[in-house]
Amino acid sequence: MKEVYNYGRVTIPTDVDVIPQTKEMLEKWGADAIRDCDGTDFPQELKDTGAKIYSTYYTTRKDNEWAKANPDEVQQMYLMTPFYTAEGAHMEIELMKGLYPDMLKPNPKDCKRWWEVVDRTEGSILDPTVWEFDEASGKVIFDCAKAFHEYTVSFLAFIIWDPVHMYNAVVNDWKDVEHQITFDVRQPKTREFTMKRLRKFIEEHPYVNVIRYTTFFHQFTLVFDELARERYVDWYGYSASVSPYILEQFEQEVGYKFRPEYIIDQGYYNNQYRVPTKEFKDFQAFQRREVAKLAKEMVDITHECGKEAMMFLGDHWIGTEPFMDEFKTIGLDAVVGSVGNGSTLRLISDIEGVSYTEGRFLPYFFPDTFHEGGDPVKEAKVNWVTARRAILRKPIDRIGYGGYLKLACQFPDFIEYVESVCNEFRLLYENIKGTTPYCIKKVAVLNSWGKMRAWGCHMVHHALYQKQNYSYAGIIEALSGAPFDVKFISFDDIKENPDCLKDIDVIITVGDADTAHTGGDVWEDPAIVTTIREFVHNGHGIIGIGEPSGHQYQGRFFQLANVFGVEEERGFTLGYDKYNWEEHPNHFILEDCTKPVDFGEGKKNIFALEGTTILNHKEKEVQMAVNEYGKGRAVYISGLPYSFENSRILYRSILWSVHDEENLHKWYSTNFNVEVHAYVKNGKYCVVNNTYEPQTTTVYRGDGTSFELSMDANEIKWYEI
Amino acid sequence: MKEVYNYGRVTIPTDVDVIPQTKEMLEKWGADAIRDCDGTDFPQELKDTGAKIYSTYYTTRKDNEWAKANPDEVQQMYLMTPFYTAEGAHMEIELMKGLYPDMLKPNPKDCKRWWEVVDRTEGSILDPTVWEFDEASGKVIFDCAKAFHEYTVSFLAFIIWDPVHMYNAVVNDWKDVEHQITFDVRQPKTREFTMKRLRKFIEEHPYVNVIRYTTFFHQFTLVFDELARERYVDWYGYSASVSPYILEQFEQEVGYKFRPEYIIDQGYYNNQYRVPTKEFKDFQAFQRREVAKLAKEMVDITHECGKEAMMFLGDHWIGTEPFMDEFKTIGLDAVVGSVGNGSTLRLISDIEGVSYTEGRFLPYFFPDTFHEGGDPVKEAKVNWVTARRAILRKPIDRIGYGGYLKLACQFPDFIEYVESVCNEFRLLYENIKGTTPYCIKKVAVLNSWGKMRAWGCHMVHHALYQKQNYSYAGIIEALSGAPFDVKFISFDDIKENPDCLKDIDVIITVGDADTAHTGGDVWEDPAIVTTIREFVHNGHGIIGIGEPSGHQYQGRFFQLANVFGVEEERGFTLGYDKYNWEEHPNHFILEDCTKPVDFGEGKKNIFALEGTTILNHKEKEVQMAVNEYGKGRAVYISGLPYSFENSRILYRSILWSVHDEENLHKWYSTNFNVEVHAYVKNGKYCVVNNTYEPQTTTVYRGDGTSFELSMDANEIKWYEI
Repeated sequence: MKEVYNYGRVTIPTDVDVIPQTKEMLEKWGADAIRDCDGTDFPQELKDTGAKIYSTYYTTRKDNEWAKANPDEVQQMYLMTPFYTAEGAHMEIELMKGLYPDMLKPNPKDCKRWWEVVDRTEGSILDPTVWEFDEASGKVIFDCAKAFHEYTVSFLAFIIWDPVHMYNAVVNDWKDVEHQITFDVRQPKTREFTMKRLRKFIEEHPYVNVIRYTTFFHQFTLVFDELARERYVDWYGYSASVSPYILEQFEQEVGYKFRPEYIIDQGYYNNQYRVPTKEFKDFQAFQRREVAKLAKEMVDITHECGKEAMMFLGDHWIGTEPFMDEFKTIGLDAVVGSVGNGSTLRLISDIEGVSYTEGRFLPYFFPDTFHEGGDPVKEAKVNWVTARRAILRKPIDRIGYGGYLKLACQFPDFIEYVESVCNEFRLLYENIKGTTPYCIKKVAVLNSWGKMRAWGCHMVHHALYQKQNYSYAGIIEALSGAPFDVKFISFDDIKENPDCLKDIDVIITVGDADTAHTGGDVWEDPAIVTTIREFVHNGHGIIGIGEPSGHQYQGRFFQLANVFGVEEERGFTLGYDKYNWEEHPNHFILEDCTKPVDFGEGKKNIFALEGTTILNHKEKEVQMAVNEYGKGRAVYISGLPYSFENSRILYRSILWSVHDEENLHKWYSTNFNVEVHAYVKNGKYCVVNNTYEPQTTTVYRGDGTSFELSMDANEIKWYEI
Repeated sequence: MKEVYNYGRVTIPTDVDVIPQTKEMLEKWGADAIRDCDGTDFPQELKDTGAKIYSTYYTTRKDNEWAKANPDEVQQMYLMTPFYTAEGAHMEIELMKGLYPDMLKPNPKDCKRWWEVVDRTEGSILDPTVWEFDEASGKVIFDCAKAFHEYTVSFLAFIIWDPVHMYNAVVNDWKDVEHQITFDVRQPKTREFTMKRLRKFIEEHPYVNVIRYTTFFHQFTLVFDELARERYVDWYGYSASVSPYILEQFEQEVGYKFRPEYIIDQGYYNNQYRVPTKEFKDFQAFQRREVAKLAKEMVDITHECGKEAMMFLGDHWIGTEPFMDEFKTIGLDAVVGSVGNGSTLRLISDIEGVSYTEGRFLPYFFPDTFHEGGDPVKEAKVNWVTARRAILRKPIDRIGYGGYLKLACQFPDFIEYVESVCNEFRLLYENIKGTTPYCIKKVAVLNSWGKMRAWGCHMVHHALYQKQNYSYAGIIEALSGAPFDVKFISFDDIKENPDCLKDIDVIITVGDADTAHTGGDVWEDPAIVTTIREFVHNGHGIIGIGEPSGHQYQGRFFQLANVFGVEEERGFTLGYDKYNWEEHPNHFILEDCTKPVDFGEGKKNIFALEGTTILNHKEKEVQMAVNEYGKGRAVYISGLPYSFENSRILYRSILWSVHDEENLHKWYSTNFNVEVHAYVKNGKYCVVNNTYEPQTTTVYRGDGTSFELSMDANEIKWYEI
């Protein structure tokens, strides 16, 4: 039966110097698609393999001739200078301080209209008539500064070196490479040119089956400092999607005047932690519509020329927003993205409106891993096993690899391992396809962003670690492979339609106070807070991690203090004696724990109200507590980094919060290192060992019957229901 | 020479059953004053000793006959119920929930005027016509609640059992004791009665020399729960200083309508952490004036009758505010208070406008310490050595003890030790008196309260430990015995007169963000922030502990981020790469450290800006950093609990912050367990060992010359300059 699953759903890279190896790998890994070799003629031998051929296409760069001929249509970005302190009335603010000079060039055209000099001490804008931009020195100069006020300048700059190209050049120490300039496809001349350029490219590459767009028009925010080190990065940043041309359109559409501050946001650039303003939400909506419209034009051309259109979820992806309604209108055939963990897997696999999704797995075939003494198999295992949890919930349709195939071929163990991954993937895809896996509960992650930031709601730079967010991102990672139907909803969703909670069992709210993750001043809106209280009171569950509903207002810091049964001591309630400190560690939620719970960064100063059941506190700082609220239940956790053990804690918390403890033993493994997923429609279920060691467990089927099982390291076993 | 210092400046307690022992202790300890025996005739033999006799006088209690005859003039307090959640339109709010029923009784008179039902979900007041108070059930009832809104009732209640009397009754398990009712001297009938009662008391106690008021009119906030446990306490609380009678006066004086919320403050009761509102500041000022006026009337009677008037700094002291201008107008002869540590010592000794101050030392002669196996000498040593640091900076004029002398007499070691303390105190008083000790620098602790909360600015219930404040209170304790001229200034002081900083060398700001300790939204006021920036820039120092200038505004959380060179990561700046992580532990400030610095609770998420010098970070969370700002310097510390080692860190920080490292070796001990204090005017200086072990050190005189010294445990050595 294995034969059925040894071909297809796999993409490999190639190069002119590895033609025989490419053919070998096509065979060995059962690959059915090849990524072309950048900038060289594609070998006829590979064209003849019958594999699909992907060609990377850069919409906004790799044509410096055009960019240089049309400098006014080079892509622009909004930047804010550091804070400058006035010692007297004369002030000189150097715009490029802290920025890499070869990457950005201030655009002084109509700067009185598009720039802002802000007195950050007063929060006021300087009258544009009082300052001048001195192009020679690169400084904004004025003589009416107030002593010891701090000033910033918000300005537009041309992106004269594409940030990703620069990154690659710096990392790989490329010498004498011409800086690729980013041009702006949304400008009229470049737009017209781009469509012709695309047709020309397709014409010149008749053997290509799939145009892989990298990506469309706007790079996520990425800026380098004077030493060419990364200075600022936001994978979700919109700062580099601006130009006077489109901002004038924006003004017409929304009917109010644009201010640079809508993008600059005090230097915070509307990053994901910021509770989004109305103006920024308007801007994002405008960008989604406009980007979709323009991307559709390119996709239509692609289709007209008989090719498929695939989008890379990264680089210049800003404005596409794959989880928003406009995305489907683009008409793409596929999305491909990099898979770092379960969350990033679902960032791809949950996208709707495309024919297929593809995950690019780690490690890249690059010398950092594929060198003498390197252990690419280990990296591949970690990556595969981590992603597999999520694939089992919502599969991508294809997997793939990137880099230099030549390097990989030097590691026969790796070649073997990838073969097993490809086969395992195809088997599980076959078993799962077309079904929704059995979901124990329907949970909703609630924050200010909702579905727009589904699965990515605790990411700054894709899946990169941050000390300040791993204790929260762990929840999303746990959910990515857990047997729940997971929705991401926003406070706006609740406000617009409280019925959106109707089919939700449990709300999860994760993050720090006064951030978009927990909502900030949205809690001053009675419509929000009462809807959620009522939701729980009527018998649903709520799980809060960190500082849920944290926002100082009307005698509370946690606006859901009465729901969660916990509150944060900010000094204001030190006068109140606190008597509830008894721990109840023998709770349903903690029954599988093998060691003290790892709360990650945890939280300080949390105390329990009267009647709340504390599961854990550290020196009178509550880390975990549960509370009954009406017919519903609430669980408070101070932080929950991702681990198999913590994943189980979250699982049990969800069940407990909706009084469903009795259904624990359904599609369940007593050993939390092993998980069970059921695909009822297809009559299959699998048991999967997520660890690199053998495991034994008791597996419970959906009817509550059980059996003992021993599993090899990483093993996945399939059963008929 | 010792003889000179073996008499005077000491007060002891007595009782009818210890007359011979009292006489013996008067002799042995050189005591010159006796506290009378509560409620019994004072023995003639003691009258004949020639010692001054103090009599405790209770202004507001110990006359239930009057209280019962005038129930309308019983003292009242404002209370807020817990939050009640509405499930439907009908709402019943039980006022006394969580309160001890025998202590408080709601006062329904004109309740529509003086109570408030607040929708805490909307932050709105319910129209008084829609609710009723049902006296029988003790509930406020209404039928227009909005589902899942939370409601509170702010109400007035009579204090039908004096909180201190109740506390004593509960702690000592008194049975069948009649509850002493607190009457309100500021009401017209009671006021008139009180003056007569005072004259009568003095007439009936002709042998008394000093009327020791305990205290005047208003108890600090102290409330007990249904189980008679302490429920809420605020040694600085004004909630129990109210009545419609005085609130009408308040309205007339300030010219705007009173709202219960001005006292209730969302249930936070304007505690010390709250940035005070204009209305609360107005109310406190009103109370200070009125309390001073009325207290003066009693003091005048005392003087007219040939007695001294002494005030106990505690119990019903609210409104007297010894550090405010009105206090001096009362005309008191003396203040006495309990000494828990250096800060509480200076809470007494820094009071101006009285002839003398007295400190009541620990331990009390009570069975909790004076029992078989107890070690009262140890407690006495700790108390004395801790307080002595502060006495050496600003002495109280007298010391004293309280409790049952009989118990103390059973511990001969203790009797001996107290004798040595009395002699040591008299000697140091003699050496110090009339001088200002040499001050290395003038420092100002800056917060929203200023001098009103001098020395007590990190206290909740006097000197009691709180996990949330010991890391900050440590600064105040260190300062209480350090060779600095210490001022306490408020943001209002700076706003009203920026010149108030003129003679200050170093500003110290200590506490958490958005509290009165650091100022909250005061940082949005350019006048404040620029004055402080300029102060430092011109060459002064600033030391910030915790979250100095912490308030989210215009792109900064620390509004003095550029001054301190540090900022707090609240998620909003995660996109900014941070490269400054090098530690510089070999810094002047840390040169005397013997172990890793104890930052107490410390702070998370602090990072350094470019150019800042980090002295310590823990896993990339800065605990200590220094920064140059113009000609001045700033020191950031995440927390600094009190210890001799930390005291030295603060000392060096202050010197470093004003570029005065070269004057370190003046009146200085290389061993931080030993301190040097100079009294230049009197031609004396002392070296004091603050520990319970012998110490060796090098002592530097004011001219920089030095000598080696070995000291016994606790020893103090006096020298001529």
